[in-house]
Amino acid sequence: MNVAVMGYGTVGSGVVEIINRKDLGLTVKYILDLRDFPGDVNASKFTKDFNDILTGDVDIVVETMGGQHPAFEFVSQCLAAGKHVVTSNKELVAEKGLELITLAKENNVNFMFEAAVGGGIPVIRPLTFCLRANNIRSVNGILNGTTNFILTKMIKENMSFEDALKIAQDNGYAEKDPTADVEGHDACRKICILAALAFGNHVYPKNVHCEGITKIALEDVANVSGIGAIKLIGTAEKLPDGKLYILVSPAVVLSDRQLSAVSDVFNAVMIDGDATDEVLFYGKGAGSLPTASAVVADVLDCAEHSERRRPVFWGPEKPELIADYREVENKFYVRGAALDENLIDTKLNDDAYITKPITENALREKLDGEPASLIRVARL
Amino acid sequence: MNVAVMGYGTVGSGVVEIINRKDLGLTVKYILDLRDFPGDVNASKFTKDFNDILTGDVDIVVETMGGQHPAFEFVSQCLAAGKHVVTSNKELVAEKGLELITLAKENNVNFMFEAAVGGGIPVIRPLTFCLRANNIRSVNGILNGTTNFILTKMIKENMSFEDALKIAQDNGYAEKDPTADVEGHDACRKICILAALAFGNHVYPKNVHCEGITKIALEDVANVSGIGAIKLIGTAEKLPDGKLYILVSPAVVLSDRQLSAVSDVFNAVMIDGDATDEVLFYGKGAGSLPTASAVVADVLDCAEHSERRRPVFWGPEKPELIADYREVENKFYVRGAALDENLIDTKLNDDAYITKPITENALREKLDGEPASLIRVARL
Repeated sequence: MNVAVMGYGTVGSGVVEIINRKDLGLTVKYILDLRDFPGDVNASKFTKDFNDILTGDVDIVVETMGGQHPAFEFVSQCLAAGKHVVTSNKELVAEKGLELITLAKENNVNFMFEAAVGGGIPVIRPLTFCLRANNIRSVNGILNGTTNFILTKMIKENMSFEDALKIAQDNGYAEKDPTADVEGHDACRKICILAALAFGNHVYPKNVHCEGITKIALEDVANVSGIGAIKLIGTAEKLPDGKLYILVSPAVVLSDRQLSAVSDVFNAVMIDGDATDEVLFYGKGAGSLPTASAVVADVLDCAEHSERRRPVFWGPEKPELIADYREVENKFYVRGAALDENLIDTKLNDDAYITKPITENALREKLDGEPASLIRVARL
Repeated sequence: MNVAVMGYGTVGSGVVEIINRKDLGLTVKYILDLRDFPGDVNASKFTKDFNDILTGDVDIVVETMGGQHPAFEFVSQCLAAGKHVVTSNKELVAEKGLELITLAKENNVNFMFEAAVGGGIPVIRPLTFCLRANNIRSVNGILNGTTNFILTKMIKENMSFEDALKIAQDNGYAEKDPTADVEGHDACRKICILAALAFGNHVYPKNVHCEGITKIALEDVANVSGIGAIKLIGTAEKLPDGKLYILVSPAVVLSDRQLSAVSDVFNAVMIDGDATDEVLFYGKGAGSLPTASAVVADVLDCAEHSERRRPVFWGPEKPELIADYREVENKFYVRGAALDENLIDTKLNDDAYITKPITENALREKLDGEPASLIRVARL
């Protein structure tokens, strides 16, 4: 089977490396990238012309360019031309998943994206195949390694957000412009993909409330250290009324929960099904070879099941199903604003406490002034 | 698609329950069990005659009888008759996996066994599909919920092995005859299955060293509490010389390792691949609905890919590849026998210590007398 790789960055070069070093019955025919890679061992395969791939002898196209454009246009054209496509591009899947899955179905080819969530951790295939005798109740995850690294430095080394971010950047874990990571946008794309797979309807990131970690103070980290750890959590949960509670925000994960022990750049996804109860998947959520290994597994699946595999069920958006997150009861960590004793679950110190379950709207009404900090307690 | 279920015990009844309550396009046609279930809602489907299934209008046969006989004979006949078979029977797979996979291949049908390891936790499909761009370096797991429950009681409640076993039996987590669990035989079957899938050759349980947890003293649990926890670990690791280090034994899992936090009846499997590094799968390793959900996922896979799926690679035994575990270097916890200071890594107290890496044979030679306790430190 002939493979083309579009985008020779961190993941794309890992894909080529794995295909070259393992005897998998795959040949890399083209590598599309506008940049030059002088002296690269794969020099003969480079092209700057997408049409070489579209019209060439290519069975499976790997998209590791990132971003929506021109990835969407290229992927669409490949699917329409009857080529299988495998991608690691979470932005593309979160924004255009419905259209691309539909297009793949119409053309009787596969569109696979295991690497788009959790990097090298198998999550999407287990969720859509292994767990499908379940009705999924919720998905909760630490979905972004950069923010988890920063939070771990704050928790374990008492380091400020700014200092921890600097170290993450120096180590290559965070980009020069870290917005997509630290503001939660990357995690948001991933929880949208997981929600679509778990509950069947496309969820657009723009409709999901998303809070980052930039406002977390060391004082808050210290205040909760006796009961848990603050993590950036993506949550998607089916509520009793059938609505979807979905958001990305910092949350206090209690110490006896598996996700509280997930540190550094590691990711983990906890899926709660009505038959299995909680199942956890843990590992490296990013990086060249881990992510590439997930891409290559998808490529092999396309190669061996070249008649289309059962596509995942992914229906159109139903925005009316998304609950107002401020109207869903939850426990909260509060610092710097008083509350009626009857509504307090646990006092942490004179200035900070955990509330009993209450909606955010009701809580803000009852608080004596604007709190210095308001952080959810994780619902898992 | 018509399904027959052989064995209406814990798992088999869960399979029927899930198929009945979810609209999966499956119909339970026969339930084979020699026992009577008066008043059961599925009364009309019971049979005591295997030939009803073998010659009847059945596409997929679920084997949840347990044990080798007559499960092996029944499964063989079903495969030979062109029926797909799904099983949760780890003893059957560990002892007869090679023969049954070969027979399935010859008859162009599927033989699937996701539920045989890790109950409801997806492990086998992720290992054989999602991680196959990796060369697997090792698999380590807490593979038996009964022993993990007992060890958790010993660790957290300072309870003796005998008292903890009694509670496990009272709660239905342990059988009246707990030998298969507490002596490690159940975990051994599972690590044999994982080793065959990870490294490609059948490994028979009789060739694998297997130590249970009956000799663990509360003193040992207390001695290591500052550095980790004693768990029953199944290990399969490819050594640098190409040999397979495989055994089941209690092991000290250091506190910063994910497996150290796996408590109660939960199971977890850590797979180390050369591309992904360590990936962990965690959840309920037993129980009616969790295990049944894994069986039903396999049944659905058979139904949708009724031309045979790519079979897992599982070659004949190569006993010469199994390393002598006593000749592989490891760290050990020792109590009650002195050792040259140069060979000691960490003193735990006057009577107990952790050694530097050394083979078990060399260690026993150098110890001053028979130790009261000798426990490996987990290699993960």
